[in-house]
Amino acid sequence: MPKALIIGAGDGLSASLARLLAREGYGVALAARNTAKLADLAAGTGATTHAVDAADAAQVAALFATEGDAEVVVYNPSYRTRGPIAELDPEEVQKSLQVCAFGAFLAVREAARRMLAAGHGTILLTGASAGVKGYPLSAPFAMGKFALRGLAQSAAREFHPKGIHVAHVVIDGGIRSARRPEAAEDSLLDPDAIAESYLHLIRQPRSAWSWELEIRPWVEKF
Amino acid sequence: MPKALIIGAGDGLSASLARLLAREGYGVALAARNTAKLADLAAGTGATTHAVDAADAAQVAALFATEGDAEVVVYNPSYRTRGPIAELDPEEVQKSLQVCAFGAFLAVREAARRMLAAGHGTILLTGASAGVKGYPLSAPFAMGKFALRGLAQSAAREFHPKGIHVAHVVIDGGIRSARRPEAAEDSLLDPDAIAESYLHLIRQPRSAWSWELEIRPWVEKF
Amino acid sequence: MPKALIIGAGDGLSASLARLLAREGYGVALAARNTAKLADLAAGTGATTHAVDAADAAQVAALFATEGDAEVVVYNPSYRTRGPIAELDPEEVQKSLQVCAFGAFLAVREAARRMLAAGHGTILLTGASAGVKGYPLSAPFAMGKFALRGLAQSAAREFHPKGIHVAHVVIDGGIRSARRPEAAEDSLLDPDAIAESYLHLIRQPRSAWSWELEIRPWVEKF
Amino acid sequence: MPKALIIGAGDGLSASLARLLAREGYGVALAARNTAKLADLAAGTGATTHAVDAADAAQVAALFATEGDAEVVVYNPSYRTRGPIAELDPEEVQKSLQVCAFGAFLAVREAARRMLAAGHGTILLTGASAGVKGYPLSAPFAMGKFALRGLAQSAAREFHPKGIHVAHVVIDGGIRSARRPEAAEDSLLDPDAIAESYLHLIRQPRSAWSWELEIRPWVEKF
Repeated sequence: MPKALIIGAGDGLSASLARLLAREGYGVALAARNTAKLADLAAGTGATTHAVDAADAAQVAALFATEGDAEVVVYNPSYRTRGPIAELDPEEVQKSLQVCAFGAFLAVREAARRMLAAGHGTILLTGASAGVKGYPLSAPFAMGKFALRGLAQSAAREFHPKGIHVAHVVIDGGIRSARRPEAAEDSLLDPDAIAESYLHLIRQPRSAWSWELEIRPWVEKF
Repeated sequence: MPKALIIGAGDGLSASLARLLAREGYGVALAARNTAKLADLAAGTGATTHAVDAADAAQVAALFATEGDAEVVVYNPSYRTRGPIAELDPEEVQKSLQVCAFGAFLAVREAARRMLAAGHGTILLTGASAGVKGYPLSAPFAMGKFALRGLAQSAAREFHPKGIHVAHVVIDGGIRSARRPEAAEDSLLDPDAIAESYLHLIRQPRSAWSWELEIRPWVEKF
Repeated sequence: MPKALIIGAGDGLSASLARLLAREGYGVALAARNTAKLADLAAGTGATTHAVDAADAAQVAALFATEGDAEVVVYNPSYRTRGPIAELDPEEVQKSLQVCAFGAFLAVREAARRMLAAGHGTILLTGASAGVKGYPLSAPFAMGKFALRGLAQSAAREFHPKGIHVAHVVIDGGIRSARRPEAAEDSLLDPDAIAESYLHLIRQPRSAWSWELEIRPWVEKF
Repeated sequence: MPKALIIGAGDGLSASLARLLAREGYGVALAARNTAKLADLAAGTGATTHAVDAADAAQVAALFATEGDAEVVVYNPSYRTRGPIAELDPEEVQKSLQVCAFGAFLAVREAARRMLAAGHGTILLTGASAGVKGYPLSAPFAMGKFALRGLAQSAAREFHPKGIHVAHVVIDGGIRSARRPEAAEDSLLDPDAIAESYLHLIRQPRSAWSWELEIRPWVEKF
């Protein structure tokens, strides 16, 4: 049974992805800072869970020591804050760089080590529109998500010729959830629909790979 | 039975797409300047064929008068020439602009008229890496494919909020064919694999649409 | 005296550029479809004037037969129309492609022939934000200006290593003029200020060239 | 006398910029980790020097407490390392994020506080081609310079409407120096020429601002 490791698991996209990959025959491993909230999802998908700070090199190494044979690795964590630059606490920038980008580097590095030996594998990095356009009053998130995109491009160029697929998914829009009642009108991103696009990327044969995919609701301005 | 209209049909991507869409339950219509070469494909897929100059407004209008109820419209035609700018015949530029971009406008316009009334539909425009990067010694193709991408962006922004999905596919790399023996090594784009990505775009629910997708072989530099 | 040829001359940017280049010691030649409107500018700058349809290959060839020794060639013509794609006359698209892009190709081709022999020269192409972002309800302009940008990139990559500087200027915002009273508040582009940026590009030594420059008023959203 | 503060001062671009700004009437302040190497430059330009770790919030705050009335602030520091992702020390990524991006945030924040009160000022951020294209075997630098570009875009969108000019300069190519003998052939970037482009950005009136400028030698591929 191929294995998929989802880092930054919670509700929303991660949960949809876990359920879809479990249905498609993957053994699923979920990593998050707080695994208490993963109990229901783990029960429903047969997933293992791991308490991990994604920006801590030692913890990430330990995670991959256990789950490193994953054929698919997904990195989701994000940290977002807003405000005028003059009023921002520099710690907010540090946190966004660490969670959005440095943690992704750690995951890519660990995943690549194992996938390079195998000659195949898929690494999916969850980006945001903030990674392609720097919005005002959102400098820390722009910095973190731009850095993630730079990592994704560099990694794709290094690893594609070695048989490892790296893709960056630009999520542009809010994701539907129990807390967001716009759900009924499909004006928010359906996490199950996003998960289908992730699965499509996973299934692309190497003769026809995409390194980036933008996804947004039909009503979202861009 | 939903209908799919493929403009610029021949071998390669168009044929793969026709076969895939036929298998998936679409009634397929094929339009090309020279329909003689489509006989086998039409026989194999049950497709209708139409002799059409894609850059001729009257012929395109006549095509859509017959096949305009298509739920999916794909525009493939391309014209490529190479050479130093100082030595190019201006007619080569005209031809690239007409075939790559103006014909696409005609198809989008006709398709939109019918899809707007229905409130749904998918329009797929086949682009090239030349549409995002202007290579030296290839100015006419750059001009035609950049123009196509401009059309695609403008159309996506106009039509997405009206329920019509527009997507631009950036094909980066040679496509495998009987004439290109690299086929065995998957170093060229497999047209069947590209067709699967087109189908994925067609199936995206409107809560999670992509307006652009780049596809290239694993060994292709970018 | 070095010569500068400005194609698509009128008021606004062209006039500012003509005056600035004349002050900086250039002999200026102005080409436009209607030269009647150029009389005052020609008188003030000592410029020659030429009645030329910039999208007509023969007329452009004749222009360069006379003024082809220009060290600096600027291409400004634009054609813009707006409307829903379903309601647009295809002729509007043709006109935008011809004026924004095909005419630019003709100018670049003629200019390059002479500059390649000399081993130096500067070609400046006036673009628009529509050339980097396809706005809704503006498909023809997007197509024309995207095509121009594709030409500019391809030409820069071909000609820079031969000593000819090609630059694409993205004008993002309205330009101040007698007809637009916002002038006083500098919320519109000052054409004299844009001309200074053109002059800067002309003066860049080849060890440090820019191929593209975006210019917009401080209050313009982007 | 207007003041210019150059952070990340050394030889090359910083020195050219210090000399040019001094000639143009600016009082120059230079900040670097190691000020010993700045003695000659300071003597030649009358500049003050400051020993500062650009990624240390307290040190940067102290710098601006002294030099914060600068009309022009330039941020240059960079940290670059290369290697396969699987073999990189995560500390190299941290260092690139801190030096290329976090330090720039600190400088922008401090500069903005003072410039917002004044209603004017110019902030110039020195980027690299690695900030727009993620090269293989160079992930840390890509991450740092992408993050810097995200900061620059976000800051430009926040500050331009408040009268503060923010620009990101994409340096694409090696810079000529005493250690690089290609100097004679102008195949490397001349730092004096780059400095002229910085000065042009400083002098743009707010009706016609650029937020980004790419600069490369004529022979550089792109």
